Amino acid sequence: MRLITLTTDFGCLNHYTGVMKGVILSRAPEARIVDLCHTIRAHDVRQAALMIAANYRYFPTGSIHVLVVDPGVGGSRRILLLNAAGHYFLAPDNGLLSLVVQDAHGIRVFETKRPDLYLQPLSRTFHGRDIFAPLAAHLAQDNHIDGLGPELDPARLTRLDLPRPTIDRRRKQIAGLVIDIDHFGNIITNITSDTINEFTDNPENVVVTLGGRSLRHLAASYDGVSVGLPLLIINSASYLEIAVNQGRAGDYFQVEPGAKVLLQAG
Amino acid sequence: MRLITLTTDFGCLNHYTGVMKGVILSRAPEARIVDLCHTIRAHDVRQAALMIAANYRYFPTGSIHVLVVDPGVGGSRRILLLNAAGHYFLAPDNGLLSLVVQDAHGIRVFETKRPDLYLQPLSRTFHGRDIFAPLAAHLAQDNHIDGLGPELDPARLTRLDLPRPTIDRRRKQIAGLVIDIDHFGNIITNITSDTINEFTDNPENVVVTLGGRSLRHLAASYDGVSVGLPLLIINSASYLEIAVNQGRAGDYFQVEPGAKVLLQAG
Amino acid sequence: MRLITLTTDFGCLNHYTGVMKGVILSRAPEARIVDLCHTIRAHDVRQAALMIAANYRYFPTGSIHVLVVDPGVGGSRRILLLNAAGHYFLAPDNGLLSLVVQDAHGIRVFETKRPDLYLQPLSRTFHGRDIFAPLAAHLAQDNHIDGLGPELDPARLTRLDLPRPTIDRRRKQIAGLVIDIDHFGNIITNITSDTINEFTDNPENVVVTLGGRSLRHLAASYDGVSVGLPLLIINSASYLEIAVNQGRAGDYFQVEPGAKVLLQAG
Repeated sequence: MRLITLTTDFGCLNHYTGVMKGVILSRAPEARIVDLCHTIRAHDVRQAALMIAANYRYFPTGSIHVLVVDPGVGGSRRILLLNAAGHYFLAPDNGLLSLVVQDAHGIRVFETKRPDLYLQPLSRTFHGRDIFAPLAAHLAQDNHIDGLGPELDPARLTRLDLPRPTIDRRRKQIAGLVIDIDHFGNIITNITSDTINEFTDNPENVVVTLGGRSLRHLAASYDGVSVGLPLLIINSASYLEIAVNQGRAGDYFQVEPGAKVLLQAG
Repeated sequence: MRLITLTTDFGCLNHYTGVMKGVILSRAPEARIVDLCHTIRAHDVRQAALMIAANYRYFPTGSIHVLVVDPGVGGSRRILLLNAAGHYFLAPDNGLLSLVVQDAHGIRVFETKRPDLYLQPLSRTFHGRDIFAPLAAHLAQDNHIDGLGPELDPARLTRLDLPRPTIDRRRKQIAGLVIDIDHFGNIITNITSDTINEFTDNPENVVVTLGGRSLRHLAASYDGVSVGLPLLIINSASYLEIAVNQGRAGDYFQVEPGAKVLLQAG
Repeated sequence: MRLITLTTDFGCLNHYTGVMKGVILSRAPEARIVDLCHTIRAHDVRQAALMIAANYRYFPTGSIHVLVVDPGVGGSRRILLLNAAGHYFLAPDNGLLSLVVQDAHGIRVFETKRPDLYLQPLSRTFHGRDIFAPLAAHLAQDNHIDGLGPELDPARLTRLDLPRPTIDRRRKQIAGLVIDIDHFGNIITNITSDTINEFTDNPENVVVTLGGRSLRHLAASYDGVSVGLPLLIINSASYLEIAVNQGRAGDYFQVEPGAKVLLQAG
């Protein structure tokens, strides 16, 4: 029996998530279901695409990751089954899997077409319940992926236009963006530790400017500065993060996702 | 082993829900527990009654649905075990099960009286932990329902006074109410697709007025209009819903639960 | 297989909690995981210490309670494994386990030192994923606790300075504090029913003053007063609570955690 994970923009444990589990367990009573993330901002495909790419490898090989961030529900968008790096992904074809596809090799992707499995009558607003849950239950029971629909060329999937940092080697600068403010108020940027390491021989000594303030030096831990003071740190997904020790950096710097971040080599 | 679902007004995963699971698993170590919904508004029996009636059938037959929305906890209200449509329900007798009783046939209902099962000493404020969880664990282990207490006449249960839409055939109008604003800001009304279909031969062509604005035509999906524009749609529980494509209709129309909705046949 | 519970300040079901479960299930595929509480206020070690001490006994003996409220993550703080009252606890040495240690007998405590089990490379910001989850998976599989690291003297653990109520027998007064406002707006104080019972022969007849208002008599249930009126009650953790029947006492009294509460014997 394969493990099923659920990622949605449904928010805290409301009945939308509960009912998806009910449908899965009605079809596959022994299925194991884990809530991966339900706090994706409503309709924020980009946030979900970054989250799943950074985190799916922490689950057992063979897991089925169900992603329902689906502003086009009921419309003409396709529903995909992707097999990559030994994991399975069920998601609308709206860019959610862009980063998984980009980073993995030997992927296979199918357009799911199995109305015989779907709940009937099909609603216009809740395919998480009517389509995704039945497909996940079917796959969890070790059914083969080839039977779910026609195979697609991975190059033909919807791609997200994800902003990448701009590197200016003459000025010794990287221009990036804030991509998220997390539950703790930590500011997550789109600048990775790999990018910094390739850019400078002295990565600990960078200067980062954000919201009109500058910070110097990468810290080794949040308590590397006094309580209430800001710091730079590489976070658990290897992104540059601006934090405040036991405080909320988003409030401290008064920035939102999309704000500019400038990194200067020391 | 029967599946247990939990519905409460306890909010996000705090220790109230966690401890109920601890008690269940102490008594029935192999029990399977699913969070159905914990985002019922505090003390909102009506919201929970609508939610459970619309959703319990998505769970396996034989499931035990535990409902703890219980403003009368510690007082004189009875605790009920209901058996309807092959499902079991544990809930205070405050109207939570009104709609389940109304829609199902051949129901049986018992007043639970098994202090030998309850946690001792019994608290005055948390019967979810002290009474509901032990009863659910007992039932999950396939114990028979007859032993839990005296059988009651279903006609004697507390009923909710649920507002129903008013149909005016002369003016070709249905007068309804907003009954919920969901996590996405979608406005849910108490007008069902069945009511609309019985009322007009041309259900796609209705005009709905809400908060001083009118909308025409039922959409087939949220993206049937441009991003940011409002639309009418039949939602996944078969209620008329007013939504905004990738936006929040509750903010757009500035309405709250209880607001009037007028539907005019085309 | 031992049960694992998770308590964090990560908030609603986001990927931080989800990924911890992924790591546990990658290492111990049959593990059972229960969310005990994820709504601890960010970095609020005191709130978590009170919560776990009041609630761990509701879980089966042998459970492993993982506590990740860890403002010192990545710094020099130790990570503890505690065995007390037949339960296991994994937590940073920041005072989280102060009350468990204080109330239990025959405890054993170890500093965990098993980098061979940790995820590599170790992040600087997310030891819940990289250290706590692998340790929990290891313990869940019935491995012995002695192999996890050197044993410590329990007297040497970090202790919290928890405010206790002051008893003035001459004036017949107890001076206490608000320690929490819960999801329902109920005001929880640090005055226990034991303290009240030792203090007066007439515990039902106390007068409590808070935010400039006074309340008399302990109620037997929330509906012992009319809807919207305030009352005194002993809550499910045996603390004195000030509530409003179907309302929010925190708003009614306009108080925050830390506010003074005065109890006068009748």
